[in-house]
Amino acid sequence: MPTVIPEAFKDLVTTKITFAHLATTMRSGSPQVTPVWFSFDGTHIVVNSAKGRLKDRNMRARPQVALSILDPENAYRYLQIIGQVVDVTEQGGDAHIDSLAKKYLGKDTYPWRSPTEVRVIYKILPEKVQTMG
Amino acid sequence: MPTVIPEAFKDLVTTKITFAHLATTMRSGSPQVTPVWFSFDGTHIVVNSAKGRLKDRNMRARPQVALSILDPENAYRYLQIIGQVVDVTEQGGDAHIDSLAKKYLGKDTYPWRSPTEVRVIYKILPEKVQTMG
Repeated sequence: MPTVIPEAFKDLVTTKITFAHLATTMRSGSPQVTPVWFSFDGTHIVVNSAKGRLKDRNMRARPQVALSILDPENAYRYLQIIGQVVDVTEQGGDAHIDSLAKKYLGKDTYPWRSPTEVRVIYKILPEKVQTMG
Repeated sequence: MPTVIPEAFKDLVTTKITFAHLATTMRSGSPQVTPVWFSFDGTHIVVNSAKGRLKDRNMRARPQVALSILDPENAYRYLQIIGQVVDVTEQGGDAHIDSLAKKYLGKDTYPWRSPTEVRVIYKILPEKVQTMG
């Protein structure tokens, strides 16, 4: 199984605008999955959350995660990634969520920002990549 | 947190045609997530796989699962479900995958059937349901 995203599927993480369904693991061992915005830095899938949220707590405590990324134009073409959160940082968290707002909403600034939240960046290194379609 | 799907979001599991991103847990403890077809029987989210596949093995061994279901017309409206696989059966597995082929492909018969596979139905009982949008 490839450990990187094959060239033929890179459009799903570079040019196409689609969500990643990010699965993390709760303290109980149960999985948990929600759609998230993401960017790709050439190596990592990069997601953004806020300090203290469920996903933040899960990814810090249990860095093994999984993602499912569908082609918005063809639901039978997708990427399935199992990976590891290898970096968690608040550095650049605000700029990153603004860049995601630009990608997904066409807005220069993230419009749902709460004044008290601390935005956090998580870099996910793919370890197993499966493609379909 | 509600333990059933709220009325205002039932369209996502009844009338709309959308995938569920189903997260299961590997033997290693890592989550795994892929898009799947599903039906709703009024109480359970019902999915279909084939005997021996990764999802089949995971759901039999570790029945705690999670689903993320997006409104195809509004990606900021979705259901997040944490639930338990409460029933696994081969009974009616073929008829169920045909009914899913009807829902998702408009075909009377599931076209990707392999002659050797045994189709299996998994009934997922929602335990925690979160809605967005």
